Amino acid sequence: MKQETFVLLDSYMRACMGDSAHDAEHVRRVLYLSLELAETEPSADRDVLIAASLLHDVGRGEQFRDPSLCHARVGAEKAYRFLLDSGFPEDFAARVRDCVRTHRFRSDDPPASIEAKILFDADKLDVTGAVGIARTCFYAAQVGQPLYTLLPDGGVSDGTAEEPPGVHSVLREYRWKLEGIYDRFLTPGGAALARRRQAAAVSFFTSVLSEVREPYEAGGRILRESIE
Amino acid sequence: MKQETFVLLDSYMRACMGDSAHDAEHVRRVLYLSLELAETEPSADRDVLIAASLLHDVGRGEQFRDPSLCHARVGAEKAYRFLLDSGFPEDFAARVRDCVRTHRFRSDDPPASIEAKILFDADKLDVTGAVGIARTCFYAAQVGQPLYTLLPDGGVSDGTAEEPPGVHSVLREYRWKLEGIYDRFLTPGGAALARRRQAAAVSFFTSVLSEVREPYEAGGRILRESIE
Repeated sequence: MKQETFVLLDSYMRACMGDSAHDAEHVRRVLYLSLELAETEPSADRDVLIAASLLHDVGRGEQFRDPSLCHARVGAEKAYRFLLDSGFPEDFAARVRDCVRTHRFRSDDPPASIEAKILFDADKLDVTGAVGIARTCFYAAQVGQPLYTLLPDGGVSDGTAEEPPGVHSVLREYRWKLEGIYDRFLTPGGAALARRRQAAAVSFFTSVLSEVREPYEAGGRILRESIE
Repeated sequence: MKQETFVLLDSYMRACMGDSAHDAEHVRRVLYLSLELAETEPSADRDVLIAASLLHDVGRGEQFRDPSLCHARVGAEKAYRFLLDSGFPEDFAARVRDCVRTHRFRSDDPPASIEAKILFDADKLDVTGAVGIARTCFYAAQVGQPLYTLLPDGGVSDGTAEEPPGVHSVLREYRWKLEGIYDRFLTPGGAALARRRQAAAVSFFTSVLSEVREPYEAGGRILRESIE
């Protein structure tokens, strides 16, 4: 890929992301992970992968403003139109569109091409491990969600219990989505990298839960004894 | 302590915290940790500790609106006035004030009483371990700071390098403050609990750094090879 083509795609991505430096860093990690995974998939087209990685989240803003929209579908059409308008061949634009459309979990529209599978895995890798936990905490803070919630008996929930309407804690998201992601990779390279990261996420979840539960149990008991 | 006294203190704390449920959960954890630490400090006065724990952050709002203010000093005076106005004895109010004033790191005004030392340790324990990391990520997201920053050569900083003006990443905060906190506890119980939590924080820091650095190095190299 020519330098000016990369700069064009990168600039369009940044314009779509608004001023969110964090989202642009996610895109950068996904791009690098895609290229890393492609090393063991010789049939993958690097240029398609670079374009699809840079453009995979350009529909985020639309979904944020209207949660009924799917950012993968909106982004796929935006990326396709942008590439056509910028003079890319239709075949290239269509291959990028397919990658972007299927990068999100959807049982009815799974990734088909090797580039789409690599992008899917690279994007999922960024919610594994310690980085996945950190991103989940960042997102929770941005939308006003808590780290954990309490059970009706006052104990700390391990994330398996239902939470009140509108509440979705980090520990709930871990049990709901992050914990099971390690079995859902589509390329051998993605699956192997995810497995290497898994222990850091499990350890974090276990540590948070015990660090919060211990004082809640010990201190809570002492407080009840201290209150007449 | 009587039930109605606890409810009065808890209500005042919540009123001072505004609608921030996360801050109230921090206060709850500090209260429980204080009571847990007091179990091995028999001379500690539980009522002073309960009041000081509940009120230790009531000056946060003032510091948030005017960063030149110290929330420990502002909060100490607020707590003192509130307790006097609510009919608590002056001696009790003064002991709580001293705990609140010295709960923050200040070399010129260290905690003196056993209750002040316990509150100091309980508050610091909540920035240790996995909970400390999670809280640091939440805070960074709320004030628009990133997880990590890049070095001038494009590599990922391990948090030891200076960051641009106004930028203070989570990894920088870890190296700057969290990493060294484990040696600064004032009670044997606080020091022991901090040591038990330390591995979770170290492991998280190490994992984030390697998870980000690996794709930046491998993918970054492949990208440079792919760009003409």
